[in-house]
Amino acid sequence: MTHLHPDRLFPASEPAQTIARQLYSEVSDLPLISPHGHTDPAWFANNQRFSDPASLFLTPDHYVLRMLRSRGLSYDDLGVPRKDGKSVAAGRDAWRLFAANYYLFAGTPSKTWIDHSLKASFGIEEELSGETADAIYDRIDAALATPDLLPRAVLDNANVEVIATTEFALDTLPHHQKMKADGYIGRVRTTYRPDDVTDPSRPAIAANLQKFGELTGEDITRWDGLINAHRIRREFFRQHGAVATDHGVPTANTADLPLVDKQALLDRVLAGTHTANDAELFRAQMLTEMALLAVEDGMVMQIHAGSRRNTDPLLFTERGPDLGADIPGTTDYVNGLRALLSRCGNEPNLRLIMFVLDETTYARELAPMAGYWPSLLVGPPWWFHDSPQGIRRYLDQVVESAGFYNLAGFNDDTRALLSIPARHDVWRREVCGFLGRWVGENRISRSTARDVAKHLSYQAAKDAYRIK
Amino acid sequence: MTHLHPDRLFPASEPAQTIARQLYSEVSDLPLISPHGHTDPAWFANNQRFSDPASLFLTPDHYVLRMLRSRGLSYDDLGVPRKDGKSVAAGRDAWRLFAANYYLFAGTPSKTWIDHSLKASFGIEEELSGETADAIYDRIDAALATPDLLPRAVLDNANVEVIATTEFALDTLPHHQKMKADGYIGRVRTTYRPDDVTDPSRPAIAANLQKFGELTGEDITRWDGLINAHRIRREFFRQHGAVATDHGVPTANTADLPLVDKQALLDRVLAGTHTANDAELFRAQMLTEMALLAVEDGMVMQIHAGSRRNTDPLLFTERGPDLGADIPGTTDYVNGLRALLSRCGNEPNLRLIMFVLDETTYARELAPMAGYWPSLLVGPPWWFHDSPQGIRRYLDQVVESAGFYNLAGFNDDTRALLSIPARHDVWRREVCGFLGRWVGENRISRSTARDVAKHLSYQAAKDAYRIK
Amino acid sequence: MTHLHPDRLFPASEPAQTIARQLYSEVSDLPLISPHGHTDPAWFANNQRFSDPASLFLTPDHYVLRMLRSRGLSYDDLGVPRKDGKSVAAGRDAWRLFAANYYLFAGTPSKTWIDHSLKASFGIEEELSGETADAIYDRIDAALATPDLLPRAVLDNANVEVIATTEFALDTLPHHQKMKADGYIGRVRTTYRPDDVTDPSRPAIAANLQKFGELTGEDITRWDGLINAHRIRREFFRQHGAVATDHGVPTANTADLPLVDKQALLDRVLAGTHTANDAELFRAQMLTEMALLAVEDGMVMQIHAGSRRNTDPLLFTERGPDLGADIPGTTDYVNGLRALLSRCGNEPNLRLIMFVLDETTYARELAPMAGYWPSLLVGPPWWFHDSPQGIRRYLDQVVESAGFYNLAGFNDDTRALLSIPARHDVWRREVCGFLGRWVGENRISRSTARDVAKHLSYQAAKDAYRIK
Repeated sequence: MTHLHPDRLFPASEPAQTIARQLYSEVSDLPLISPHGHTDPAWFANNQRFSDPASLFLTPDHYVLRMLRSRGLSYDDLGVPRKDGKSVAAGRDAWRLFAANYYLFAGTPSKTWIDHSLKASFGIEEELSGETADAIYDRIDAALATPDLLPRAVLDNANVEVIATTEFALDTLPHHQKMKADGYIGRVRTTYRPDDVTDPSRPAIAANLQKFGELTGEDITRWDGLINAHRIRREFFRQHGAVATDHGVPTANTADLPLVDKQALLDRVLAGTHTANDAELFRAQMLTEMALLAVEDGMVMQIHAGSRRNTDPLLFTERGPDLGADIPGTTDYVNGLRALLSRCGNEPNLRLIMFVLDETTYARELAPMAGYWPSLLVGPPWWFHDSPQGIRRYLDQVVESAGFYNLAGFNDDTRALLSIPARHDVWRREVCGFLGRWVGENRISRSTARDVAKHLSYQAAKDAYRIK
Repeated sequence: MTHLHPDRLFPASEPAQTIARQLYSEVSDLPLISPHGHTDPAWFANNQRFSDPASLFLTPDHYVLRMLRSRGLSYDDLGVPRKDGKSVAAGRDAWRLFAANYYLFAGTPSKTWIDHSLKASFGIEEELSGETADAIYDRIDAALATPDLLPRAVLDNANVEVIATTEFALDTLPHHQKMKADGYIGRVRTTYRPDDVTDPSRPAIAANLQKFGELTGEDITRWDGLINAHRIRREFFRQHGAVATDHGVPTANTADLPLVDKQALLDRVLAGTHTANDAELFRAQMLTEMALLAVEDGMVMQIHAGSRRNTDPLLFTERGPDLGADIPGTTDYVNGLRALLSRCGNEPNLRLIMFVLDETTYARELAPMAGYWPSLLVGPPWWFHDSPQGIRRYLDQVVESAGFYNLAGFNDDTRALLSIPARHDVWRREVCGFLGRWVGENRISRSTARDVAKHLSYQAAKDAYRIK
Repeated sequence: MTHLHPDRLFPASEPAQTIARQLYSEVSDLPLISPHGHTDPAWFANNQRFSDPASLFLTPDHYVLRMLRSRGLSYDDLGVPRKDGKSVAAGRDAWRLFAANYYLFAGTPSKTWIDHSLKASFGIEEELSGETADAIYDRIDAALATPDLLPRAVLDNANVEVIATTEFALDTLPHHQKMKADGYIGRVRTTYRPDDVTDPSRPAIAANLQKFGELTGEDITRWDGLINAHRIRREFFRQHGAVATDHGVPTANTADLPLVDKQALLDRVLAGTHTANDAELFRAQMLTEMALLAVEDGMVMQIHAGSRRNTDPLLFTERGPDLGADIPGTTDYVNGLRALLSRCGNEPNLRLIMFVLDETTYARELAPMAGYWPSLLVGPPWWFHDSPQGIRRYLDQVVESAGFYNLAGFNDDTRALLSIPARHDVWRREVCGFLGRWVGENRISRSTARDVAKHLSYQAAKDAYRIK
């Protein structure tokens, strides 16, 4: 049997446990707001059945893959596709290997999410293991053929009120166009993530910028044409539900250059003569440009800063990105955002949500910054830190300087559709546990705790992302 | 009703709660030692009534202002004076706005301090809100007219044994001179903070140095004259109660240059031709000079390193410094203090208290350094970290390497006079909670816990600052 | 009486306390695996009595010395030898001073270790103090003359199954050779620590490299000869039980240079014309070379990165290294190991254990790295962080991303032989406390907790170091 105790994650001792349980009972059934994530819009547009258990739970989940690899299992045997097209293990074989090594996940959030998903979506309460591998595989496989496991039914069953996907600037949004025709936009929304045309470290940058010009009819060889292309594209994304933009950047650096320098920088990027410093400066300038456009159009800006991508060149060559070799780095948000904030940090229409993988910035930078600037909010714990202990460290370090009302609520930020309710559930339990401890220490009243628990479970995300 | 439970902040569970409560009962009434802070010496010199509630609680408290601003309220509407003299909201109007938004402070130390102050000084137990705004304003306003709320009575009522203010090197200390004539020096003391003549990043530095020479009769254009001017000024400050110096610096960097280099650096500063690097080097050298003077005269040296000041240029231009836009930065104390410590770190007469806004240094640098050098003590949690969770992180990380006896006790470090008892109370509660947990875990004996609780509540600060 | 409560360090509240106690009862008597440390191999080779209490407990323990120094006691009075041969206090006098100041250690791991050692090895339960100093000294001194306190008996009594010492590359291992003849190798093992021939910042580097060539018969002036000398020396160490190498480096930087650059670098080092950057690059390249040799011979590689050594020049001049003036620094493991991991991070035979003094890397770097790379494990908390709170912060931050099975178990890493059982006991208690809290929060099952407690107490270290 898995270990999904009804009181899981609540404080072990009284009175905090009972208070947490009471708080949780008032928030556990609130609808889910998922304003940032990476689910596939094709699922919701086409509403076709998921193919098989391994491609649902295993191969798209880099948390799971990386742990298995770290203990010596090979990505071939786990069925992770190769660029050279050589064959890899079939779904059921990979699943068996995963199941036999499932004990490795003890203590990790992955186990919590998977156990929760197996129970909530398939009614499975047996612990995944070598012995139960086939039976569980068959049970999932059979369920995937039923209407209850179609993508839109999954959203219904999980009470997902809003979910945002993330698309690059050059994406023509075919799936969102279909959903728009279906009247499904609003529940599903896109997000504008222009990294494909703002990051000169991508080999295809010049080609991408050229396509960007063609797509928008703007002359992107001139700086104002480039900015106008973004303006046009943001409008197009908004027509498909977008309320936000997202920016995945190695650092939080921003710049505010004179036009002549911006044009020269663009010239070098288009000519392919830019240096690594130029690439950083271009990204930095584009963040400020995105902020200025956000002042114009009211889209909420998200910065996800500090992942060191593709640290294993062998993996990248063999199979590509997003397979577990991205590792956090230090981030300096104060010096990083200085140029952007000096330019437009006091604009009432600007809303910027900060995400980090460097927890040392929570109390030192993010909370004090969000506790001063009207434009800034602290994003929820990201990636490796979206875990019970990660959420505890986050609340411990941000609340006192930022208060509860400068937090952006929760993001699940996942590709793993079935894990969405599990992730929100962990957040809600941890928020209630945190508040239960504080009520138990007579630091806040029960009624305040109740208000805050509801706010952080639901309304904070809607407010942060301006979702009406 | 506010939430000032008698057991607030103590551990929620037994046996730690009962132990903490017992420990606290022995320290809660000890006199307050306030060896570092920013109260206005004019208050204690003149002992005049405070003008009104808003100018007591709201406009001087950058913790409060910044939070309100972060949620979109304007400093004009909060009554924060402008440099251009344009009118801002009157006290009562600002107060109403503050009160209506007081729920934003849930979970912040500001709420703890304000609730405590309202109750302790005015007997007010109603929660501040839009509804109670006027009644509470009137009640405070009436009380301010009574003798009990005169500044010296506030010190008496709060059982403040010693309080230090902080003045710049060029300050002529008129209020302390008056208090000296009154026999009030000793209870109130000044502190020598020579940033006005040691920080070349200040536009007025050359003019300030010239005044410094005039004030002391020394030739500050020569390095030894400059040092002698400090020697003279430190003596003057000591005559007005000073036991310590204080140094607010962006980094903890120190230097120990040959005389010829020091003179050349001074020449450039006086000529206004210094670079940013020169400014840093000048500050670094001056820290070492201050340490050498401390070896001579026995004044305790405080370094407050790592605040990035005035990160919002608009705010600075409109209204000036100290209004919430200072944000912490990373600090390297080990490399920073290397020159100073190599020069005089083993001098028995040197006492240097280290303060940081970068909590990552607690366990990595400050505690190991204080646990080795006889001259070093770890200062209490500073600024954003002077909060219940901040104190917990601090004790968690410093005690095991520094022990309890290399800590400098508590500082309230505040401009907000009425919050002083509240801040000391939080420290004492947290110390007792920490010790209660450790006794509960059978790590230290009750008698040791009792000794340590008393030490950290009272004697540690007297010892650290050599207050007889 | 000292405070060695049977439930010490366990959670204060139920149900976590009872769960922790039950878990501990199953691991407390497991044999000790000590795969990394600094005990003197002469002890085990010669099995002679220890000379006196002060030279056992005081003068070799830099944790103890540094604390006493930090409160103003002099190393002369504590009996720490001087390079100039001037006399220092005798053992009993130093002991009295130590005892009279033993209260300073309240809250430190040193006190836990010493109290535990005094009780376990000598049956002493009185608290060390000025009053008890002589009686305890005499009791220890008498016991040291008995067979029970001979070094090998100490290993027997403490149930030490394996203990590794650490020797430099030039060490001829005379004591291990004697133990090999005795059939004692296996229980005692050496470790290959080639810092003496890999760190060009040592003044003797050129002479050391020359000796290295003589010792191995290789031409160390050529890069391949240098590497072959290591190959030969590693084999020699393996013949004396070594399963691992160890590398004490200021940073975790690695390099992977072309042969021509490596040879040029070696030429400069041998000529004594290398810069500080050359020294860093040489160390960086040698780490990669050691990894490549580890792929060949299967020795486990340990990197201890980030200590800033000898920060007090006066101490170093007067008395030498390892006396308390080494302070932690920040470490960047991700960028640091990039070259090494790109070269051989996916080799199945590579095993690399990472140690840090910068706790900010636990969740940000070490756990994510070990949770991806099959070659990496997270070493236990090191040095200042090998303490109850240090272990809590470690488990809090590494488990969720690395899992339990990417941890290397425990190291005592000590010169203080008698403290070994005490240190393992603290680790086991903290592991059980951690698991007890998680079972109490219904996050993991009791049976999983039991498996993990046993694994981290014993088998993890054997597995990590490939001890059969």
